Amino acid sequence: MEKAAERKEVITIPKPTLRRLPIYYQYLKNLESSGSKVISCTTIGNDLDFDPTQVRKDFSYTGVEGKPKVGYLISDLIREIEEFLGWNKINAAFLVGAGNLGTALLGYSQFKQHGLSIVAAFDQDEAKVGQVIHGKRVLPLEKLPGLAKRMGIRLGIVTVPPASAQQVADLMVQGGIQAIWNFAHITLKVPPPILVRNEELYYSLAALSHKLAKNMHIPPKKGEEVNVNSL
Amino acid sequence: MEKAAERKEVITIPKPTLRRLPIYYQYLKNLESSGSKVISCTTIGNDLDFDPTQVRKDFSYTGVEGKPKVGYLISDLIREIEEFLGWNKINAAFLVGAGNLGTALLGYSQFKQHGLSIVAAFDQDEAKVGQVIHGKRVLPLEKLPGLAKRMGIRLGIVTVPPASAQQVADLMVQGGIQAIWNFAHITLKVPPPILVRNEELYYSLAALSHKLAKNMHIPPKKGEEVNVNSL
Repeated sequence: MEKAAERKEVITIPKPTLRRLPIYYQYLKNLESSGSKVISCTTIGNDLDFDPTQVRKDFSYTGVEGKPKVGYLISDLIREIEEFLGWNKINAAFLVGAGNLGTALLGYSQFKQHGLSIVAAFDQDEAKVGQVIHGKRVLPLEKLPGLAKRMGIRLGIVTVPPASAQQVADLMVQGGIQAIWNFAHITLKVPPPILVRNEELYYSLAALSHKLAKNMHIPPKKGEEVNVNSL
Repeated sequence: MEKAAERKEVITIPKPTLRRLPIYYQYLKNLESSGSKVISCTTIGNDLDFDPTQVRKDFSYTGVEGKPKVGYLISDLIREIEEFLGWNKINAAFLVGAGNLGTALLGYSQFKQHGLSIVAAFDQDEAKVGQVIHGKRVLPLEKLPGLAKRMGIRLGIVTVPPASAQQVADLMVQGGIQAIWNFAHITLKVPPPILVRNEELYYSLAALSHKLAKNMHIPPKKGEEVNVNSL
């Protein structure tokens, strides 16, 4: 699904590094708000349970420079990670599917700190169109392609049931959207070079429940029936 | 973090297979509800864009058997995948953090089909304790360990901010919980053999926005400012 140029890009930045950068970012933001100024890879490694050498290597991808025996300026690290991840600019996004999950994502004010602003929500369900969710009016799905083009939207979020997801992705592609964050548990077919990132909640559940089911050395406990609502 | 016996288990089932099984499952459930009875690996491969040989190999892990030139009974496949993933039994779970995301997860009736039932919600915030969310009363956090033990709860879901997540995990461990589904963007420290599955929403955002930022062959468009709420 990706062109050679993109694939090269993906290879040059190891996935584990890309996975750790948001963790460093969150950690550093916490440190900064508690008044710290400088940090070493050793401290970061100890606090986050990562190898300090790996931490240094991860940071090197962002181009940030530390000082020997002093460490890194926390503000430098935060700025460089933001720039590297593209979180210093806000990506405006359209969300389709104003159900439970869609509503939750619309209410996530924290996304703004991570480069994401959901600027409009869409739904196919006439009962949902016109509702205001976290300050956003739900628009009819058919308006998506035209509006995405007019507003230059590059990111789409899919929170519809699997049966409608491909149709929604098609409309996003039609509207010029270049990256799709897919929460529907289905393989979306999109033309290159459009990117799809699948959020696999059911894979997580599979991994957890499969492991629990196979944990034979931990016998399942016989639990008491408790009416928790009466506590 | 895992004992040798568990690690062996994890190695014998390739991650990509475990990732695809819920996709097959969803697909097969849709087929079943539309009245289909039999399916071949070739058709599944074509529909889901997977290699048919890989599909056959994935199914072999579940122990299901197909018939040459006929294919698989859809009902067999569904049953074997459910059993393999532990989705034929319901894991009762406690959720901590009754914010936006927690509320969304509490409202996900679909989880029941995937072996998960959230039986109680907890929060530290006194303003939230006592509220009823999707039929579940929010309980004070300090009740978690005792109640988890009494009810034999094995699965915990963490939807609190990163700063409170470790404390919540500690209480879950204290209550005998054996697997944690962590939505807080922080590395949780838990004793073996407790399992942690991290849901990395910010990693996804990092991957998407980093790729968008680096997609130099797709120049960012200058979009029109549209007040979407006035449409």
